[in-house]
Amino acid sequence: MYGGALYLMIRFAFAAALLCQAGFAAPALMPLPQKVEQAAGKLPVDGTFSVAATAWSDARLERVLDRFVARLSRQTGIPLLSAHAADPSHAALRVECAAAGPDYPTLGEDESYTLAVAADGALLKAPALAGVRHGLETFAQLVTPGAEGFEAPAVRIEDRPRFAWRGLMLDVSRHWMPPAVVKRNLDAMAAAKLNVFHWHLSDDQGFRVESKRYPRLQELGSDGNFYTQDQIREIVAYARERGIRVVPEFDMPGHTTSWLPGYPDLGAQPGPYSIGRTWGIFDPVLDPTREETYEFLDGLIGEMAALFPDPYFHVGGDEVNGKDWQKSAKIQAFLKQHKLADNHALQAYFNQRLIRIVEKNGKIMVGWDEVLHPDLPKATVIQSWRGQNGLADAVAAGHRAILSWGYYLDHMRPASYHYGIDPTAGAASKLTPEQASRILGGEACMWTEYASAETVDSRIWPRAAAVAERFWSSKDVTDVDSMYARMETVSRLLDWTGVTHRTGYQPMLDRMAAGRPDEALRILADAVEAQGLGPRARARKYTSLVPLNRLVDAARPECETVRLMEQAATRLAAGGAPDSADARMLREQFARWAANHARFEALAGRNALLSEDLPLSKDLSAAGALGIQLLDYLANPAKPPAAWLDEQAKELARMQKVNVEVILAAPRPVKVLLDEVAKRAR
Amino acid sequence: MYGGALYLMIRFAFAAALLCQAGFAAPALMPLPQKVEQAAGKLPVDGTFSVAATAWSDARLERVLDRFVARLSRQTGIPLLSAHAADPSHAALRVECAAAGPDYPTLGEDESYTLAVAADGALLKAPALAGVRHGLETFAQLVTPGAEGFEAPAVRIEDRPRFAWRGLMLDVSRHWMPPAVVKRNLDAMAAAKLNVFHWHLSDDQGFRVESKRYPRLQELGSDGNFYTQDQIREIVAYARERGIRVVPEFDMPGHTTSWLPGYPDLGAQPGPYSIGRTWGIFDPVLDPTREETYEFLDGLIGEMAALFPDPYFHVGGDEVNGKDWQKSAKIQAFLKQHKLADNHALQAYFNQRLIRIVEKNGKIMVGWDEVLHPDLPKATVIQSWRGQNGLADAVAAGHRAILSWGYYLDHMRPASYHYGIDPTAGAASKLTPEQASRILGGEACMWTEYASAETVDSRIWPRAAAVAERFWSSKDVTDVDSMYARMETVSRLLDWTGVTHRTGYQPMLDRMAAGRPDEALRILADAVEAQGLGPRARARKYTSLVPLNRLVDAARPECETVRLMEQAATRLAAGGAPDSADARMLREQFARWAANHARFEALAGRNALLSEDLPLSKDLSAAGALGIQLLDYLANPAKPPAAWLDEQAKELARMQKVNVEVILAAPRPVKVLLDEVAKRAR
Repeated sequence: MYGGALYLMIRFAFAAALLCQAGFAAPALMPLPQKVEQAAGKLPVDGTFSVAATAWSDARLERVLDRFVARLSRQTGIPLLSAHAADPSHAALRVECAAAGPDYPTLGEDESYTLAVAADGALLKAPALAGVRHGLETFAQLVTPGAEGFEAPAVRIEDRPRFAWRGLMLDVSRHWMPPAVVKRNLDAMAAAKLNVFHWHLSDDQGFRVESKRYPRLQELGSDGNFYTQDQIREIVAYARERGIRVVPEFDMPGHTTSWLPGYPDLGAQPGPYSIGRTWGIFDPVLDPTREETYEFLDGLIGEMAALFPDPYFHVGGDEVNGKDWQKSAKIQAFLKQHKLADNHALQAYFNQRLIRIVEKNGKIMVGWDEVLHPDLPKATVIQSWRGQNGLADAVAAGHRAILSWGYYLDHMRPASYHYGIDPTAGAASKLTPEQASRILGGEACMWTEYASAETVDSRIWPRAAAVAERFWSSKDVTDVDSMYARMETVSRLLDWTGVTHRTGYQPMLDRMAAGRPDEALRILADAVEAQGLGPRARARKYTSLVPLNRLVDAARPECETVRLMEQAATRLAAGGAPDSADARMLREQFARWAANHARFEALAGRNALLSEDLPLSKDLSAAGALGIQLLDYLANPAKPPAAWLDEQAKELARMQKVNVEVILAAPRPVKVLLDEVAKRAR
Repeated sequence: MYGGALYLMIRFAFAAALLCQAGFAAPALMPLPQKVEQAAGKLPVDGTFSVAATAWSDARLERVLDRFVARLSRQTGIPLLSAHAADPSHAALRVECAAAGPDYPTLGEDESYTLAVAADGALLKAPALAGVRHGLETFAQLVTPGAEGFEAPAVRIEDRPRFAWRGLMLDVSRHWMPPAVVKRNLDAMAAAKLNVFHWHLSDDQGFRVESKRYPRLQELGSDGNFYTQDQIREIVAYARERGIRVVPEFDMPGHTTSWLPGYPDLGAQPGPYSIGRTWGIFDPVLDPTREETYEFLDGLIGEMAALFPDPYFHVGGDEVNGKDWQKSAKIQAFLKQHKLADNHALQAYFNQRLIRIVEKNGKIMVGWDEVLHPDLPKATVIQSWRGQNGLADAVAAGHRAILSWGYYLDHMRPASYHYGIDPTAGAASKLTPEQASRILGGEACMWTEYASAETVDSRIWPRAAAVAERFWSSKDVTDVDSMYARMETVSRLLDWTGVTHRTGYQPMLDRMAAGRPDEALRILADAVEAQGLGPRARARKYTSLVPLNRLVDAARPECETVRLMEQAATRLAAGGAPDSADARMLREQFARWAANHARFEALAGRNALLSEDLPLSKDLSAAGALGIQLLDYLANPAKPPAAWLDEQAKELARMQKVNVEVILAAPRPVKVLLDEVAKRAR
């Protein structure tokens, strides 16, 4: 079937570049497969497209194929009413799965697959269901409109993940995330080949699971926003169908304020307690000196262990400030009595008791890196968030570990930042191979102090896809331009999984503009970058009751348009012609910015949601006007005075300071031109 | 509580104008209430907002309030965790409902309400639940961002519907509409105060309900795409919660091709039959001469009558071409034997039998206007779709009737067209008051030959909101500019009900552009108007398997931007200054169009979904370039030659012909300027 196709072996980075050539539509694969060989020809994908399992199959595999067909139909808009081939051997895409693989997704299972696409058909081969799922996601990314309609290019792919633990952590406590939010993100995770959903289910601001044994946990600790046990089971089943493990986290002994309104006796202080409404590190903490605490935890963990089939169980353990322990004479007496040097030792004592409870319930404990202590049993998996040293220390000490430092999506750093961090770099680069083998992978983390159900998708995607590539693809896949080009295309493909990271944008702008035509606002929002945890905490007093409906909440962490302008400006500065397409595009965009403030002012009058953005809008127009001036300088022999250049550089620097919790990205391409004009003026 | 507010009585049309003043954010009410009095002051809507029932209440009313709070929270982005006031008498919005009203929404029930908003609180009063729902929708429309945050202006509203039957018909047969599509449209219907969901459940292309008694109907007649009885019950309950009656339609004796693969004996010809895949009027028809047909219908209608609690039951009856009757010697013999003059008489015979079955099952029959016949029992409600005469004839003959002629959304006419048609106009204007009282209202109809689950929302909304206003508001509410201004704002508000008429646009463009930045496509799509049934049927051979993923499917029926440009051009032609904001806006937009073709060409290369649009794109740029020339002529004393003016007029006319099933709207504002330049040149 594939004999006729001449395949061309292509190395990783080159393949990446080839697969995302600007100028015409080529498929964007992310994460990039381990090996991609391209050939001439293409497989048409039209209404006659069909798929069939031609080797082992079962109901679960058939459901995988059903979902794939539905997704492909959404992605292309093609009705695929007869996609299940009557004669499997003539299916356009044949799926040869050797065996089911584990019943529940399992750490380290074989996730490999090979995919061969030729003009007359495609063949996906995998040893087990996990590889089938991944291969189908890759196939979906290959499908793109061509000269005669949708098609998949002829290609031969061999693929397997670099790391076995590729996770996304979602905090559902700071802001409540209804089941639909979780489900659509699970679909997007599957598209990005992520395989662990780390569900941060309790924190100071909310206990989000129904406990039948201790119902006051959710009754007094969740404002009514919690998952019923049926919903938990449904979501776990949903994830499992998509090859995603669900690791629940119940953060303790700190971050437990929401447990205490219902069960104040668990706390180190007498209470009363109320749900946390602000952000930060809270004093309330479990009392590790009372036997009743462990009895309670045994009951709770027993109940929760039965709800979550995954063998790993996350107990948190981060950010215990110890103040409530310090203030308790009884607890201090306990420290002396048990010869515990300090709070860290007390937490280690707590963890030793805790791990026995976790293990008694058949689970392997996972904790944030603060739980690391010489007395901690080696079975505990460490999640390193405070730095790469913690990861190296943990695996050197014999623990298995995953990296989350560098992957905090809520910090709103650019994708390139996260992409540049490798779990085996930094301190981990000095580990022995045996030690390094205990690095299981990593997790992108989405804390939700500054994200609501409405905005969270746009904080996770598409940057989590870049992190997913870091966990999946070879270590030497590091080309940032290729990553961005593919990520932006994949971001649009993710629309078809149901996440609202792109579709949620315009409605938020429309809300701010009171439902009026709001292009002026969109032009502004397209040119700013939302800031994360640090700048937002410094900007104003946030609580869980503060609406997340301002420009910073609608704006994205990165500006695609501005990035493309920066690239154009760089090419122009490097010698592009003054009448090149780059120059014309920049001039058009600068003119639009320059004219925008007058229109934005008209929109922002008497509107509290917009008036705070007026200074930003003024800067945008100034940046546009300056950009035009600089294009003129580049096109003409006249040179500007040095003082003027200095003044403009200062202005551009000022404009790039945080304002209303966003940063104006617009000055960046202008700065590229300014530097070039300054260079030529010297 | 309201004594302090000084209310200003405002007449309908004036109120409409006032409520949609351009320039600052004012609430857009649609449908416009019967009486609106504005006053000074405003009620803040922030995190402390609360609502409570202060008179009669029950679980159903509490759910209405819950949904209102959730919707208001989505609309504003404000977490409303404590919206249910602990002390009802201090709620920001107090709801005084006198009684439950009917258990199931009932034709003619009291839907009135009064709403008084003042700076210190709002009071909604209604005799029954229906009025509460409508009043809450009106309140939600009042809430808009102001100088200090979200607020509702002080206002006193008295409101009640003009017509009792205000419907939306949705065809789920031509293209399958999954339950989620129906549900989100029910939410949008409730927002538009529509109260009848007419569910066109069977047609030649699909039988969409599970029949337990005759399972081959859905097994062989639906491609697997049908509602289970549980889903039907769930959707009926969903509608009922929102005050919407569900009227099922099983179209017969024509439009029944999909019934016949499973039950060929029902057909007038021996068969075999297969599901219809094309559009139009089909020959297959039930055999009205066999007793077994009526036994079958008795069984089916009995089963379906139990599934749908509404007393009205729609039996279709349209477009029977009679060919299969004509071809059957047995049926022709039956005509002679029963002295039936023709096929129409045979259908009347069928209907007389049918109405007995319908009535035996406790239902009132509804049919399309073809069923009208002197022998038809007067209890039958006539739905007039072929003209206003049919409506007048029906009510003159003693039937009750509803109008759908003029409200066919799938024809893709502008909202102003539908808005201009009144159920009591035309032939109906000559009816006696007693006759006219039998006009129950009307229904907007969405046939889905050219709409899929992905595109249907954008074919229904926002135009259905304008039709809803026609059914609800006073007959003298006819100001088209006011309607458009309010409709566009309400269209954006409808986002929060879940319909995807706006959010689905960009993903469809992204799909066409293969996931690349596609502003050039968006600029083109923003300037074209999708065509409906007629032009599409003439353009190419459509079947239910043809993808609806092209420009015509993404494009909207009307261009907001172009409409605003036309208004600006009209003001400019009427004497606006050459440097006015209107002129600047037009010049900027024309320049964008003029520059667009080069960028669109770069995007469209090797892409079958875009290359067909190249001529259109070229015309757009030409229109933009001409617009700039004309602005220059208006600003300068130079006059163009008459031949050039003629030539341009011809070009603009040519550009406005249907092309790739859309019409370029861009020439319209250009034509306004051309006419003015020509006038000045004379």
